[in-house]
Amino acid sequence: MTIAEIEALMDQGFPDWRKALEIAGLGDNDLTLRMPFRKSLLRAGGTISGPAMMMLADTAAYFLTLAQAGPQVASAATANLDIHFLSRPKPVDVIAVATMLRLGHRLAVSTVNLRSDDVVVAHATVTYALPPSKP
Amino acid sequence: MTIAEIEALMDQGFPDWRKALEIAGLGDNDLTLRMPFRKSLLRAGGTISGPAMMMLADTAAYFLTLAQAGPQVASAATANLDIHFLSRPKPVDVIAVATMLRLGHRLAVSTVNLRSDDVVVAHATVTYALPPSKP
Amino acid sequence: MTIAEIEALMDQGFPDWRKALEIAGLGDNDLTLRMPFRKSLLRAGGTISGPAMMMLADTAAYFLTLAQAGPQVASAATANLDIHFLSRPKPVDVIAVATMLRLGHRLAVSTVNLRSDDVVVAHATVTYALPPSKP
Amino acid sequence: MTIAEIEALMDQGFPDWRKALEIAGLGDNDLTLRMPFRKSLLRAGGTISGPAMMMLADTAAYFLTLAQAGPQVASAATANLDIHFLSRPKPVDVIAVATMLRLGHRLAVSTVNLRSDDVVVAHATVTYALPPSKP
Repeated sequence: MTIAEIEALMDQGFPDWRKALEIAGLGDNDLTLRMPFRKSLLRAGGTISGPAMMMLADTAAYFLTLAQAGPQVASAATANLDIHFLSRPKPVDVIAVATMLRLGHRLAVSTVNLRSDDVVVAHATVTYALPPSKP
Repeated sequence: MTIAEIEALMDQGFPDWRKALEIAGLGDNDLTLRMPFRKSLLRAGGTISGPAMMMLADTAAYFLTLAQAGPQVASAATANLDIHFLSRPKPVDVIAVATMLRLGHRLAVSTVNLRSDDVVVAHATVTYALPPSKP
Repeated sequence: MTIAEIEALMDQGFPDWRKALEIAGLGDNDLTLRMPFRKSLLRAGGTISGPAMMMLADTAAYFLTLAQAGPQVASAATANLDIHFLSRPKPVDVIAVATMLRLGHRLAVSTVNLRSDDVVVAHATVTYALPPSKP
Repeated sequence: MTIAEIEALMDQGFPDWRKALEIAGLGDNDLTLRMPFRKSLLRAGGTISGPAMMMLADTAAYFLTLAQAGPQVASAATANLDIHFLSRPKPVDVIAVATMLRLGHRLAVSTVNLRSDDVVVAHATVTYALPPSKP
């Protein structure tokens, strides 16, 4: 799928998603997703909340899976998400780059690096279980 | 810390938290946190959103860490969260039970089982990095 | 499968496995696997080597998957293993208890607690990908 | 530490390690470790055993941590290892490339890609807990 096609699919199911996220690029094997800074993302201490970063990583992996496997896997569900928080992100945009490690018939495994001000602030590995393909 | 003390600490930093979560019990080595159902938690397909479940697991582990280590670790930050989604939760309350595996000087590791309608729908392992204790 | 059937299956493929491991119990939803102490398991500092503990966790999850899903999944392969080391095991037997979280058609997810001298020294979550069942 | 210094440190503690592993390169932020093929690594089906790959990932992360933090962290212990097996490795050498994500005062987090015949067959994230530095 192209960026425009993923955006259109999301517009149908999650009309508000563009308030939180912005697809910034799609490469041969990666996708870049931006979470623009807004005050509601802040946690005590002036850092970005962990759940917001997990949502960002999960969504970046989902969009990359859609881009590579097509709209027929729109019902794919997260099977596993493992995230390591490396340093506290500053109150600026967070940029996620998801890279596909393996797109199989049943599982799509990707890694996601989250950057804030050019520092990698978190690293996630995300596995999506794909719906069975119809014969 | 007692349930009331954790609630008071949260009221200071996150005035809205009680709209989303409710501490349902505190045992010798576990804490139960309820996420009452509300429509905004739903994802396409009528299931609870994954990021909401990750937030629930992360918070249950945080509260258990506070309960066992005290308010001096209020600035503890998630170092790692690993979550396995087992089956799609129904549109009802989700109940998280966090159990401490090891409370060390530097890391607190706990597991969290998330139940929906008495089925374990997700299992997480959460590591909090504790702030250095003052001498 | 029963303990005896799992043992017989292993004897075929890995004639030496009994030198390292011993199935100590099989319950409705769990399996207990013992790794008897031997000097070759030791690492500098007098503790049991991490890779030996990972092998133990992986094998306990495999045997439990066999017990519940039968010999037709003997070719199941580890898709993911996440292990948290909690404290250094003493130079004694290590006992692994694997508990099934979810046995699906495609994935079997279990947790494994490793105990040394009655202390939980590691906690793992192990996912096996099951071979497609024949129609 | 240089490659020669890491090798010398290992020779002291694990005289046999060179039978299993070979440091193939050390870069600014990464280390390459080779596990030469030998028949004892094989599992049923002609693939390399999972525990051997976990040992390789764990050791590559350890050597990289030594390279960057020095011999004073030789007693560092694995706190967490999360590995995703992507495809079955062929019966050839497995090459691990460990890259440091963050070297902190207390934790060193790195990722490790394992390649077999130029295909990424597994991806791991490994956290080492570092010994407290002396004042």
